[in-house]
Amino acid sequence: MNDDIKGTTNSDQDINDRHRVRMARKKEVVDAKIKDAQRVTGVIVINTGNGKGKSSSGFGMAIRAMGHGMKVGIVQFIKGAMSTGEEQFLRRFPDEVSFHAMGEGYTWETQNRERDIEKAEAAWAKGRQFLSDPTIGLVVFDELNIALKYHYLDVQKVIADLQARPEMQHVVITGRGALPDLIEIADTVTEMQVIKHAFKDGIAAQAGVEW
Amino acid sequence: MNDDIKGTTNSDQDINDRHRVRMARKKEVVDAKIKDAQRVTGVIVINTGNGKGKSSSGFGMAIRAMGHGMKVGIVQFIKGAMSTGEEQFLRRFPDEVSFHAMGEGYTWETQNRERDIEKAEAAWAKGRQFLSDPTIGLVVFDELNIALKYHYLDVQKVIADLQARPEMQHVVITGRGALPDLIEIADTVTEMQVIKHAFKDGIAAQAGVEW
Repeated sequence: MNDDIKGTTNSDQDINDRHRVRMARKKEVVDAKIKDAQRVTGVIVINTGNGKGKSSSGFGMAIRAMGHGMKVGIVQFIKGAMSTGEEQFLRRFPDEVSFHAMGEGYTWETQNRERDIEKAEAAWAKGRQFLSDPTIGLVVFDELNIALKYHYLDVQKVIADLQARPEMQHVVITGRGALPDLIEIADTVTEMQVIKHAFKDGIAAQAGVEW
Repeated sequence: MNDDIKGTTNSDQDINDRHRVRMARKKEVVDAKIKDAQRVTGVIVINTGNGKGKSSSGFGMAIRAMGHGMKVGIVQFIKGAMSTGEEQFLRRFPDEVSFHAMGEGYTWETQNRERDIEKAEAAWAKGRQFLSDPTIGLVVFDELNIALKYHYLDVQKVIADLQARPEMQHVVITGRGALPDLIEIADTVTEMQVIKHAFKDGIAAQAGVEW
């Protein structure tokens, strides 16, 4: 308990009362916003930027969807030469998750553009299967933005396929450098920005954190 | 195939060759960076900002860790009045994941500061158990930043407990408004920034996407 010199009482009770009033006001605002947002439809979510959390957020959405009994389709572009924790884990649930990894590592590993294009097109063909299957509630296109940035896939073709998907199907697309045309047709877009990164302090990419 | 007027050939072969040279250079840079970052240690990761993906990235890291055979401890602050997809899913694995939800909804729902403090302290006590258990490879403190922002927990006490944890244990902390003192002691900090959000277009928060 503190009393200040002007005689007003800055007691715990006062703090608690002010908190109650402030939170009641906040609840009104939040409730009103929720009341205004009632449309239910499949959404396209993009996670881009140079920061951490783009792919891991996509996989977090996958388990959210699975927790609600939804089936999930996952296509990993670019990544896939190494066995990741998410792949090892999600392959435990073949009835709930269809997992397709492009399987050729990052493009600077292969240095072979023609092979990269071939692999990206094969991965997108798999993705189109998911996009035409209304029993799949969420499709994760991990690192698709990289394949689009390097023009391994035609963005207009990708957009057309996305827009032709079942009405209630959700999609999450990850990778730095999301193209403006893709951002345009997305519902929710987040830019993951680096504030600091352990890598710069000489700490290695580690299992359970980066892969 | 295009020939420009100066007679240089801008063929697919040229594009592919330039790609190979550019990617070889990129590989050198990336390989050198990886060579410099070799320290292996438990890291503290913070996901903050107003954008989407903070919590879902934390849960994505949880399944990455599980894929590598690590045990995971999760404490959900603030959230928990409703049953989320992530909770439903992760409770399937009681031998791999210890899940503790504070269970009182957002603070503007309760409007009761004393009860919120009590619940936050009880949740942190559970978190401290995880932080003193070297068999747990990753601890997720979901929405801890909110509890700190409202001063339901003392940030210096939280930092001391985090720094006393087992050397190889990773921690991820989520929630908007991460406090500067916490950012200071973290290894990797990402700010999720809103580029656009479906909610503003009148689309509801939906199962498998937001919860």
